[in-house]
Amino acid sequence: MIKIGIVGGTGYTGVELLRLLANHPKAKVTTITSRAEEGVPVAQLFPNLRGHYDLAFSAPDPDVLGECDLVFFATPHGVAQAMMPDLMSRGTRVVDLSADFRIKDAEVWAQWYGKPHGCPQLIAQAVYGLPEANRHLIADADLVACPGCYPTATQLGFIPLLENNLVHPERLIANAASGTSGAGRQASIDNLLSETADSFKAYAANGHRHLPEIEQGLRAALPKGAGQIGLTFVPHLLPMVRGIHATLYATLRGNAGDLQALYEERYANEPFVDVLPAGSHPQTRSVKSSNMCRIAICRPQQRDTVVVMSVIDNLTKGASGQAIQNMNIMFGYDETLGLNSPALLP
Amino acid sequence: MIKIGIVGGTGYTGVELLRLLANHPKAKVTTITSRAEEGVPVAQLFPNLRGHYDLAFSAPDPDVLGECDLVFFATPHGVAQAMMPDLMSRGTRVVDLSADFRIKDAEVWAQWYGKPHGCPQLIAQAVYGLPEANRHLIADADLVACPGCYPTATQLGFIPLLENNLVHPERLIANAASGTSGAGRQASIDNLLSETADSFKAYAANGHRHLPEIEQGLRAALPKGAGQIGLTFVPHLLPMVRGIHATLYATLRGNAGDLQALYEERYANEPFVDVLPAGSHPQTRSVKSSNMCRIAICRPQQRDTVVVMSVIDNLTKGASGQAIQNMNIMFGYDETLGLNSPALLP
Amino acid sequence: MIKIGIVGGTGYTGVELLRLLANHPKAKVTTITSRAEEGVPVAQLFPNLRGHYDLAFSAPDPDVLGECDLVFFATPHGVAQAMMPDLMSRGTRVVDLSADFRIKDAEVWAQWYGKPHGCPQLIAQAVYGLPEANRHLIADADLVACPGCYPTATQLGFIPLLENNLVHPERLIANAASGTSGAGRQASIDNLLSETADSFKAYAANGHRHLPEIEQGLRAALPKGAGQIGLTFVPHLLPMVRGIHATLYATLRGNAGDLQALYEERYANEPFVDVLPAGSHPQTRSVKSSNMCRIAICRPQQRDTVVVMSVIDNLTKGASGQAIQNMNIMFGYDETLGLNSPALLP
Amino acid sequence: MIKIGIVGGTGYTGVELLRLLANHPKAKVTTITSRAEEGVPVAQLFPNLRGHYDLAFSAPDPDVLGECDLVFFATPHGVAQAMMPDLMSRGTRVVDLSADFRIKDAEVWAQWYGKPHGCPQLIAQAVYGLPEANRHLIADADLVACPGCYPTATQLGFIPLLENNLVHPERLIANAASGTSGAGRQASIDNLLSETADSFKAYAANGHRHLPEIEQGLRAALPKGAGQIGLTFVPHLLPMVRGIHATLYATLRGNAGDLQALYEERYANEPFVDVLPAGSHPQTRSVKSSNMCRIAICRPQQRDTVVVMSVIDNLTKGASGQAIQNMNIMFGYDETLGLNSPALLP
Repeated sequence: MIKIGIVGGTGYTGVELLRLLANHPKAKVTTITSRAEEGVPVAQLFPNLRGHYDLAFSAPDPDVLGECDLVFFATPHGVAQAMMPDLMSRGTRVVDLSADFRIKDAEVWAQWYGKPHGCPQLIAQAVYGLPEANRHLIADADLVACPGCYPTATQLGFIPLLENNLVHPERLIANAASGTSGAGRQASIDNLLSETADSFKAYAANGHRHLPEIEQGLRAALPKGAGQIGLTFVPHLLPMVRGIHATLYATLRGNAGDLQALYEERYANEPFVDVLPAGSHPQTRSVKSSNMCRIAICRPQQRDTVVVMSVIDNLTKGASGQAIQNMNIMFGYDETLGLNSPALLP
Repeated sequence: MIKIGIVGGTGYTGVELLRLLANHPKAKVTTITSRAEEGVPVAQLFPNLRGHYDLAFSAPDPDVLGECDLVFFATPHGVAQAMMPDLMSRGTRVVDLSADFRIKDAEVWAQWYGKPHGCPQLIAQAVYGLPEANRHLIADADLVACPGCYPTATQLGFIPLLENNLVHPERLIANAASGTSGAGRQASIDNLLSETADSFKAYAANGHRHLPEIEQGLRAALPKGAGQIGLTFVPHLLPMVRGIHATLYATLRGNAGDLQALYEERYANEPFVDVLPAGSHPQTRSVKSSNMCRIAICRPQQRDTVVVMSVIDNLTKGASGQAIQNMNIMFGYDETLGLNSPALLP
Repeated sequence: MIKIGIVGGTGYTGVELLRLLANHPKAKVTTITSRAEEGVPVAQLFPNLRGHYDLAFSAPDPDVLGECDLVFFATPHGVAQAMMPDLMSRGTRVVDLSADFRIKDAEVWAQWYGKPHGCPQLIAQAVYGLPEANRHLIADADLVACPGCYPTATQLGFIPLLENNLVHPERLIANAASGTSGAGRQASIDNLLSETADSFKAYAANGHRHLPEIEQGLRAALPKGAGQIGLTFVPHLLPMVRGIHATLYATLRGNAGDLQALYEERYANEPFVDVLPAGSHPQTRSVKSSNMCRIAICRPQQRDTVVVMSVIDNLTKGASGQAIQNMNIMFGYDETLGLNSPALLP
Repeated sequence: MIKIGIVGGTGYTGVELLRLLANHPKAKVTTITSRAEEGVPVAQLFPNLRGHYDLAFSAPDPDVLGECDLVFFATPHGVAQAMMPDLMSRGTRVVDLSADFRIKDAEVWAQWYGKPHGCPQLIAQAVYGLPEANRHLIADADLVACPGCYPTATQLGFIPLLENNLVHPERLIANAASGTSGAGRQASIDNLLSETADSFKAYAANGHRHLPEIEQGLRAALPKGAGQIGLTFVPHLLPMVRGIHATLYATLRGNAGDLQALYEERYANEPFVDVLPAGSHPQTRSVKSSNMCRIAICRPQQRDTVVVMSVIDNLTKGASGQAIQNMNIMFGYDETLGLNSPALLP
């Protein structure tokens, strides 16, 4: 039984970690921090956890965190960068759910997040925690940067096309939509039910922070010399709580062969990527509360534009579930431990 | 490992049984029937089950069902009555999720369901499967009639008041609201999203089929000689999928004492009834996907009307979860087996 | 064409006033105030108004407001009390949508709103703006206190029973539910879509601020000597934007006669109260965006508990529509002017 | 006052026509047909219309329809084709909201709708009723084919780019999403709230019936010799009732100039197309219940992919509102008559 700490547990990725870890057979949450809610029982803030946790939020204490085998950061950007050097020096392994260590170029990070990177010296050793791309590196990593929600759905959808150099990489389009839980648990007018229900809109069309992360991941999948990645990424806000749907468009270079077979083979051994039969349309509810990514591909009118549809639960495979998948890999457990429940439907 | 059959598995209680049983350590679904979907894999109809079940729907076969240790009926009214004599004669135990054996008086059943009872000879041996009231009888039962969703939320809310004869039983009010999944998975105009979203209404105010079931259960809780049960029950339809909220009103007979303590004591040992702290308001989402019932009580302005709020997930504690809870009791397992996951929040 | 001012126009009652007044043939909004949004065009904050208004928000200026024929207050509690003496002294008539002048007893106001009443000297001349009860007084009033949303739905539902002394007034129950727009347009965690969608709960069961307002109104309807009003009022929060549904319960004193006819007669000449045929269940969507209140009554199992169901749009008949109805009466216009559009369905 | 008939009034476009025409100063609905609901008052089927219409549904009668100045068809595909010759011979003008006369090539129609066109001889004289493209033709038309919902949003978004030959026409992408009311008011499992709420999915990615209609419209906008139209169109289903959002992608040919100015000029005199300021993201709720189309354009990272976002209410500008706009043009009325109300927000 490994000891788990969670830094910044009052948001949706925090409560999702707690939900998924409640019955994990090999991991036990021993500390969870929040300055704002210090002393408040987690089950008071999140009534679904009544009867599952006796823990209360505490102020972050380096000594306490240092005794954990693994610490999850479920914090706003910048917090992990500040605390990481001390924590790493104590030998504690970390899965960071924030964007702090996802971008390999500190200047790009600074440009998109609006401040200098606070811990550039640890960027190099951070492993990008997309198991379907980096499983071997994750196993030995001490610091895993857990991918963002849009990046997870988008990369898993594009990877087979790019790895096989089947499409023009400089003209990719990702039209994605997310439930409101992706905006986090913080007071705002824009995310009131009264403002977002019964409505749909794009946002950040001119540039969302996940763009450089996605492009970096797509670049990694592309064979050397195959060209430049150019992605147009437009996120949208759905009037619902959980789920991401990415509709991906790419232009085929030539005869693409059997794309359905290509995807099925690429993900044949992946426990959390499910390629649907030809002609399918994945629904976000088919993955709600689960760590699964479901994917379908098609080629409308047999023209040269291929369409890939990819769905995940943004809080599970898009955040806390993937974080636990990374933990399982890091500690040599069965990768699916604690992540085996079917999605909630209806 | 007991062998489980499900009769009528294409509805929401069917898929909920499959979801909850997917990882049950002591039970395995070996057959699931549907005449309409014969031959169709369950994972095709319910994509959340992809990777969890290889089963396909089959036509009901008495010999196959007779080999099961337990059969769940998740069927429209009347089906279980027709199949029960044969099945019981084979020694198979049954948990019936339909209303077929809930009402003890065959004439009352006939009056509310519009046709004669099809199997009156088995009514007497059917045990009403509300564990918080009938746990000992359930353990030995061969035929358990699993309570309806509204009846579960309402009875659990009223029982402590009635058992202690604290309120006038002839003037009870249950104002309840349910998500649309309570209406089942069948084609209709009335339950389209376009008809039910962004709206709220009462229905069946002049008499809902759950009324006689609830009154029968409340009568059982009332001490002899304490008066007649008279319930006004008005159900409402919520613009959401899962959840029941019952707001119950009763008039206190006199000094009621500490109601909070009364409820906490009554349910202290119940794994699936959670009495919230004084001043709380239970949310349906705090029990979504879980088998928990959460209850709060208050006495506004210290007047003689007591208000009880009770929430369940209509598909879990209100149907399939409670059915599995009954199964666990019938087979001597830990009552919470397979039912331990925290609710999904947000 | 009368000149209209709106104080505090950045909330939902503000935008609803603007929507309804956009095409009113006799009234034109000439000023709208907001300190926080001073200088911002109203059509920037509320994109549905693009092309309909050139106005920008301005800081409140007594001279400008004093030139208006009518000023609507769409402000938080306390603001109208502070500005009213000056404004009234200028001869401007006022419809106050806040709770500042609804309660006739300043001490009761202070008790429920947590501070002393700021303008007790004007309470007496304020007319409670429920046209179905006070039409004649409204016509001549200079200061109209527009009823709250729950109070409107609840009073219209109970009035015929109370006026005719048909029920025990000390045991009334109002189980009501509102869309989230009733909570206003302000940053909060509790009203995020992620917190309120797919869920339902009661709130303020121990005492909501609308309770004394409703009881005062019910008292006014009851014949002298008919007893004391005692109301248990439990509001609930619906996962949708607009609409209030009140389910009202009362115990009949004896033979009540034909309740359906009673309601139809009471409201026969009311343009904004629609008594549905016997057996109906009003849906909130049947009044969405309209000033209509629809009501149905029934008597389940012919017992002595009568059930009244009453629906309004909380922002229209429950606030801004009723405010305009009051304006129409005050200025001698056809009461339905600008309020004639059918509800939006679906 | 012109006399209006509606054929097939029990669906959502029917009730939307009735809502919008209730207060139209120049048009009065004198007959509305439905075989299934013959004799039922429209206000019984659609309670929002209580007090606005005394009409009942009647079986279609050629003589009665022939006395109308204008007949709207709000029918399933094929009905208008069958009734049109008789009706046209009586001199009645028609606005057909179905797809029966939208496609100019009868064989293409047959291919996508799965049966031979039932009235090919009238196709040529049918005018495609997109006022922003065909206003002059509409004015004199006897038969107007009112555009589909997706085609309206998509064409209005692409037209300025195509008319000016700024993009590669053979690589257009329309990623669109619609509320469930687009699926109509008919019993189905797929469109139950329990199946569609809290979820999002694409559908008909391999080919939706609106594809040939959109491509035909885009072709008409493109200068001769500018190339072939090739559109990838992927519709999605939103968990909400009303609204369409089209996110359009095109590859610029070269220096595109000031796209914002281009759009503003193109639509400067259009009463129902609103080009938002640069940097905006139109929300579907900003047009809910209104006939407006709101559009924003951007060019992310100044690359050569231009993104256009276009929103309409599928039942208003996407169907019944546009039908009335066409009617206003055909009869020489102010084009905005009866269509002037601001959208409903929140």
